[in-house]
Amino acid sequence: MKKLINAVENVILEQLQGMALAHPELKVSLEPKYIIRADAPLTDKVAVISGGGSGHEPMHGGFVGPGMLAAACPGEVFTSPTPDQMYEAAKAVAGAAGVLFIIKNYTGDVLNFEMAAELVHGDGTPVQTVLVDDDVAVKNSLYTAGRRGVGTTVILEKIVGAAAEAGYDLDRCAELARKVNRYGRSMGMALTSCTVPAAGKPTFELGADEVEIGIGIHGEPGQYRETLRPVDDLTTTLATEILDDLAYSRVLREWDRVNGAWVEREEVDEPFAAGDQVIAFVNSMGGTPLSELYSVYRKLTEICTARGITIARNLIGPYITSLEMQGFSITLVKADAEILSLWDAPVKTPGLRWGV
Amino acid sequence: MKKLINAVENVILEQLQGMALAHPELKVSLEPKYIIRADAPLTDKVAVISGGGSGHEPMHGGFVGPGMLAAACPGEVFTSPTPDQMYEAAKAVAGAAGVLFIIKNYTGDVLNFEMAAELVHGDGTPVQTVLVDDDVAVKNSLYTAGRRGVGTTVILEKIVGAAAEAGYDLDRCAELARKVNRYGRSMGMALTSCTVPAAGKPTFELGADEVEIGIGIHGEPGQYRETLRPVDDLTTTLATEILDDLAYSRVLREWDRVNGAWVEREEVDEPFAAGDQVIAFVNSMGGTPLSELYSVYRKLTEICTARGITIARNLIGPYITSLEMQGFSITLVKADAEILSLWDAPVKTPGLRWGV
Repeated sequence: MKKLINAVENVILEQLQGMALAHPELKVSLEPKYIIRADAPLTDKVAVISGGGSGHEPMHGGFVGPGMLAAACPGEVFTSPTPDQMYEAAKAVAGAAGVLFIIKNYTGDVLNFEMAAELVHGDGTPVQTVLVDDDVAVKNSLYTAGRRGVGTTVILEKIVGAAAEAGYDLDRCAELARKVNRYGRSMGMALTSCTVPAAGKPTFELGADEVEIGIGIHGEPGQYRETLRPVDDLTTTLATEILDDLAYSRVLREWDRVNGAWVEREEVDEPFAAGDQVIAFVNSMGGTPLSELYSVYRKLTEICTARGITIARNLIGPYITSLEMQGFSITLVKADAEILSLWDAPVKTPGLRWGV
Repeated sequence: MKKLINAVENVILEQLQGMALAHPELKVSLEPKYIIRADAPLTDKVAVISGGGSGHEPMHGGFVGPGMLAAACPGEVFTSPTPDQMYEAAKAVAGAAGVLFIIKNYTGDVLNFEMAAELVHGDGTPVQTVLVDDDVAVKNSLYTAGRRGVGTTVILEKIVGAAAEAGYDLDRCAELARKVNRYGRSMGMALTSCTVPAAGKPTFELGADEVEIGIGIHGEPGQYRETLRPVDDLTTTLATEILDDLAYSRVLREWDRVNGAWVEREEVDEPFAAGDQVIAFVNSMGGTPLSELYSVYRKLTEICTARGITIARNLIGPYITSLEMQGFSITLVKADAEILSLWDAPVKTPGLRWGV
């Protein structure tokens, strides 16, 4: 295993120490581990909080700051953070406007965020939960029941973070988050595996010319393996699955803050259609050069244009990664005027910054 | 060779087409290849122009925009652009305030930028040239005589671009650029090679536990190979070489815009000393996860602090890359009040953005 680390057991600790040194505008707690805005606690704004396994940097810790997340809770690599991390982060940052937990749909994350939501509620702080489940590749995997939460998470955190900054109340923030999730779909592929430090060997093996289509962000299997094809073909495969995805329906479990209980609600994604505007996000899995992402974007633009879909905004680079994995993912989020306006709003985080 | 490309011969063309689609705030010329600010030609500001082989993205094309470069000229992968690219880019963007060519010290780049400078001068446009030669690892390599131009280039382009935006005239811009180069030093190391598309195989081979210390950004050899050590040790090795570097003296060739001739001038770098403030730049060679760079930064902070050197600003991420190569480089640039103020000034490019 070739990695820029010291002892395997200190990897996350030392990376957080580095973040704390590099970004004095954030507050980094090492026990329990969380990253919060330095101007916490927020007095009159909703605290948008996310978290998940480490190894996807800059997500989530790199998205903490004005206009995006109020707090992020990093677990060990590809391992959910614990409820006490989420609870302590919420206590440190939240004010009377309450807490919105953004949860990527993986079994461990869901269980732990649910426990944290109950703890936060127990303190009398208003709390809501929203699941992100946008991966069209597979409906179940090692880590999740239902679709996995992937690239839409980044777009959602930006948009809902801007809404919280603009003074949306908790219910409106949650409603907006659900809309972005209904509007967003993603799919990824890998050229190579990654190696989890504690495992010491690649998560999976691919042949010299082999790629995995529909890969997850933890190296979990996708739809199929095949021989590497030109980037235009790969882009077409992923974009077509995203754009052809129909009204995906499932039952989501969410916290009812009024009654203090879990409720189930049917959610149906809205299909893409000619005339739509979208935010297009071409993401590196971590080890793929930026230059290759532009080739993906080139073809993606052509595909969208042919369907009468306009890319109104784009994001291109490594934002939701799988350590050093080579490959890319595409996320498309249907964008109405509200979403575009919130996307354009100022954001100041280590990973995404504009307008300030 | 596993890459997200179509035909090898179209790699740069298609990436530029992708950039043009993604960034309508830039103008991308495909024949000859260059990227310029969309508000060109500049009327009363110096046009800071750079370029070099492709494969180092986001440098240089991703640094075009208000507050940084006026134009960038991409060559084929790891191959210098041609004089006509530089000349045409200068013609498209420059006004009466003239052109400053920022040249990384590689034999091909130097020769071609020198020809371009003569062509620009021939048109009656004021032109100056400044070399960047900041790599303390080796004084000569396959590509260069004297120290190679590496990470300081990114910092210099930001600072001098801000100066041009602020209305510095050509002579002041050139003087400032020389100062930043005198103040900046870098060194890098690689965990893995990269593969140039046209070559189809890795530039070099490293064993399973082997790393290369002092690597160049084209995969050219460094100082030595050794077995992988902990990141703290590697960071210490690189930072120590940078911080211990003495008054490096060499003769640089520069264009004398008044007399229209090449002149040679001795340049002496200023050593680091206790009490200095620096901009610290921890760079991924392309394939290294962001999280590992924070571990580098953690140790780098400790080393600087122990020497009485304060990191006043930092930049952490993949900014001057070698395709998918894994590894990192450290750049330290001594920063006086002028440099810090220009670093903090607004910049709006695909690769670096803040304040706007």
